[in-house]
Amino acid sequence: MVGLGPGHPSLVTVQARQALEAAQVVIGYRTYLGQARELLAGKEVIAGAMTQELQRAGQALDLALGGKRVALVSGGDPGVYAMAAVVFDLAAQRGLDLAGGPGGLAVEVVPGVSAVNAAAALLGAPLSHDFACVSLSDRLTPWELIEQRLDLAAKADFVIALYNPRSKGRHWQYGRALEIVGRHRAPHTPVGVVARANRPGQSVNVMPLSAASAAEVDMQTLVIIGNSRSFQFGRRMVTPRGYLDKYGTP
Amino acid sequence: MVGLGPGHPSLVTVQARQALEAAQVVIGYRTYLGQARELLAGKEVIAGAMTQELQRAGQALDLALGGKRVALVSGGDPGVYAMAAVVFDLAAQRGLDLAGGPGGLAVEVVPGVSAVNAAAALLGAPLSHDFACVSLSDRLTPWELIEQRLDLAAKADFVIALYNPRSKGRHWQYGRALEIVGRHRAPHTPVGVVARANRPGQSVNVMPLSAASAAEVDMQTLVIIGNSRSFQFGRRMVTPRGYLDKYGTP
Repeated sequence: MVGLGPGHPSLVTVQARQALEAAQVVIGYRTYLGQARELLAGKEVIAGAMTQELQRAGQALDLALGGKRVALVSGGDPGVYAMAAVVFDLAAQRGLDLAGGPGGLAVEVVPGVSAVNAAAALLGAPLSHDFACVSLSDRLTPWELIEQRLDLAAKADFVIALYNPRSKGRHWQYGRALEIVGRHRAPHTPVGVVARANRPGQSVNVMPLSAASAAEVDMQTLVIIGNSRSFQFGRRMVTPRGYLDKYGTP
Repeated sequence: MVGLGPGHPSLVTVQARQALEAAQVVIGYRTYLGQARELLAGKEVIAGAMTQELQRAGQALDLALGGKRVALVSGGDPGVYAMAAVVFDLAAQRGLDLAGGPGGLAVEVVPGVSAVNAAAALLGAPLSHDFACVSLSDRLTPWELIEQRLDLAAKADFVIALYNPRSKGRHWQYGRALEIVGRHRAPHTPVGVVARANRPGQSVNVMPLSAASAAEVDMQTLVIIGNSRSFQFGRRMVTPRGYLDKYGTP
């Protein structure tokens, strides 16, 4: 399972490149394969659609069991809302031996720069204290649990990163999430909205929480809501670590 | 601000390498500079100690204002418990213009593979649902707030990553954190303990929450506590995304 990072080839790690070079078969969601185009020459490439995660994981395991070196690619990090858990979960259900010994499969996760870290870098330093990541997709998670997580994370003054804020068929959840967080956070709390980080069409905006529901967001947008100490600085957003409070300005 | 990733040179991104190559001065905590040793030839190198974050940030800004191209390096990602916020916070206090125009400074954050993603990759897929990161260091954060965050994050069934679980002068906080999470989590909940990920002396262990307080941890250890659905699979730890529950085993 190979993480390609946020999208730009310069944010791919050396290890991810090497894993793709060593692979005989590369499997992935169409968009992510597009990111790695120049590394795929001469390989068997299997492109899948957004909702076929289980099929891709099954195919990767079957091909690997058949003796192929397979790279299953994810954007960002394969461990964050991505394919690594799908593969391990399926392998566990099938009772496969992944210890890498004789007769077993050797499986490795190659980490990548995660979407939340890429978005944070473009915004400045919004993530620099305790933070929580919450996906607003209720396809596999009951909405009630998502609401509870938002409420408790906001109450605990975590910086909150929202993944998948809106999709074609899912419209009201983003506004509702802001409303829940707004119970515990001042209206001027900075919110960073990053679309298509490090990809064509990138946009980066910082706005107060009170105005954030009007931001255009989609499945390729990541939203970071500051904690009670976060502030806007020019076009950036910063969550202090606390050094200046403790030690004063040097 | 340049992120070097978890430690192994193969997990540095191309962009981070390029930023170091372009720099005239490289500043960083001694350990991180050691990770980038082969990229530092011919450069002015300023190595600092662990507790001199403000001094390093100030030095980096002063040198950049004096016209130098400066790389301030962090291990992992510069935006996660690292130097990016210190620089922006200090620049804001000094009223510096970081917009990059004439007379201003051009400042950029180069993201890296974060410690939590590196640890997760070695453990399997523990982070694959909503998760929260909490640092147990009370040097700059009141312990009461850390306890409240742990309690609410556990109540909300987040996967919880503990940074800085123990230091030379700080012993009881790790055990206390496990106790707080244990109020909301079953004793068999898997806990992953990763020390020195992708560096010499790496160790990776999965154990039940009930046994986790006995694990040896230090400032170079990252601890990931599963949510109520996480399970141990061989020597790995997996947090299901929910596909198999919804769609069954294909």
